[in-house]
Amino acid sequence: MRRKNRPALIAFAMRTLSSIKTLQKILQPLHGRKRIGFVPTMGAFHEGHLALMRQARRECDYVVVSLFVNPLQFGPKEDFAAYPRPITSDRKKAQETGVDLLWTPAAEEMYPSPYRTFIEIEEITRRWEGAVRPGHFRGVATVVAKLFQIVRPDRAYFGQKDYQQTRVIHQMVKDLHFPISIRILSTLREKDGLAMSSRNQRLSPAERAAAPILFRALQKAEALVRKGARESPPLLQEVEALIRSEPLARLDYAALCDPKFLEPLERIQKGAVLLLAVKIGSVRLIDNVLIDI
Amino acid sequence: MRRKNRPALIAFAMRTLSSIKTLQKILQPLHGRKRIGFVPTMGAFHEGHLALMRQARRECDYVVVSLFVNPLQFGPKEDFAAYPRPITSDRKKAQETGVDLLWTPAAEEMYPSPYRTFIEIEEITRRWEGAVRPGHFRGVATVVAKLFQIVRPDRAYFGQKDYQQTRVIHQMVKDLHFPISIRILSTLREKDGLAMSSRNQRLSPAERAAAPILFRALQKAEALVRKGARESPPLLQEVEALIRSEPLARLDYAALCDPKFLEPLERIQKGAVLLLAVKIGSVRLIDNVLIDI
Repeated sequence: MRRKNRPALIAFAMRTLSSIKTLQKILQPLHGRKRIGFVPTMGAFHEGHLALMRQARRECDYVVVSLFVNPLQFGPKEDFAAYPRPITSDRKKAQETGVDLLWTPAAEEMYPSPYRTFIEIEEITRRWEGAVRPGHFRGVATVVAKLFQIVRPDRAYFGQKDYQQTRVIHQMVKDLHFPISIRILSTLREKDGLAMSSRNQRLSPAERAAAPILFRALQKAEALVRKGARESPPLLQEVEALIRSEPLARLDYAALCDPKFLEPLERIQKGAVLLLAVKIGSVRLIDNVLIDI
Repeated sequence: MRRKNRPALIAFAMRTLSSIKTLQKILQPLHGRKRIGFVPTMGAFHEGHLALMRQARRECDYVVVSLFVNPLQFGPKEDFAAYPRPITSDRKKAQETGVDLLWTPAAEEMYPSPYRTFIEIEEITRRWEGAVRPGHFRGVATVVAKLFQIVRPDRAYFGQKDYQQTRVIHQMVKDLHFPISIRILSTLREKDGLAMSSRNQRLSPAERAAAPILFRALQKAEALVRKGARESPPLLQEVEALIRSEPLARLDYAALCDPKFLEPLERIQKGAVLLLAVKIGSVRLIDNVLIDI
């Protein structure tokens, strides 16, 4: 039943549904018999999402993609209402990518009143995105736990672009004994290096031209490490100076951290992750690079 | 394979093990084929525990009992170290009750360092035991979620004595989509009405003689409601007066609440739960009664 040699663009019948019960009924006979791949998304599919779906398609017998703009992970001042929701083109892209089932749960079914249960991941959520966006990872962990419980996939696919999120998911899966293999795929980039993100479409043309500054800063840090730099402070100063050189950019944070628990490093020893959050105009972008030494 | 007619006291080979992996390996072939019943406990088995096991035995093909004194649900000033751990007699009792597998996980395997993930149930944990024991229900919900994830039972059995706990579990199971039927069994009592509890063995003879005051207070409230009492304040005054009449007893709380969300009621309309927490000497006891009208 593995569709290993399926040509990429042949149209076939993708199911689209929103009911949790119907989804579970469809998946029930597959558990333990077929390998279920799962790609949780908030829609507005770009090549990064499609790469996750393609990888799931290659590795699994049945591919489920969820499309749910999760209100719980947006702060009160964040862009939940403005988050793009191009459902028709999303459906077309998922279908063309060979997805078996596109699941679009309704918020009222995901969080029926009274909803009371939340997953908290400590420590690893305290800094960086967790500090800037209080409650964000609680919302992410809670919805992912729920999606995992409902879909019960064998493998789940996430992009490295949301690096801290991947570490949060890893920790949760381990701590809560989810029998799911978590697959993290490299960040996909535009030709000028800008990491693909659903938020990129909200950049004005001038902002879009300024946005690759994040990637250039990551590249600069990598080059410095290649040349032997090991101390964080001077490295981060160079990164910050480069970001400052772009008038439309405002640095939120740049941090060199241990890649597992995201604690800041004074000195790179075995390897590190460089995390970057930058506001370009009103759009907040994040990016990262894993630095091997 | 249902052992409906198994005589209650025939000895058979009960497995005892602590490894999570070994447990999962044993249960793996049963999922979806046999009905797995699960009784999570902290050991020190009394008739209340055994009643849960017997009910699981009657209703299920395979009965798993976990014995784990969960450090996470004890406060820093509580009785974790002093909690009774009579493992030899527990094993004998479980075996005689027809349990298939007694699982005794180790704390280091349940919470390997670094452990970071916690389940929070809001609102329903705010009052009563939640207020007196901060973090208690977070510990309960977290360990039960973990046990459920590992065992993946079809049915799980809890005693009504820990009433608020049963509501917390219900909420979590619903919110996190656990495909588990939760069975709540009536509180078992000693002849004088004292609710069975592992903590009872820590009562001195004088305290033990005073302890049935909880049950007498619940009975008094029931009698008053039968006679037409509907307003909470006078009802609770009678309960409190009765508790005060016992010199060794110190009331922690007495509350008439709606039975689902445990919000206090000014007036009993459809039914209520009367929750009681009383210190007898240094031992804190809880009890409750569901009042139907």
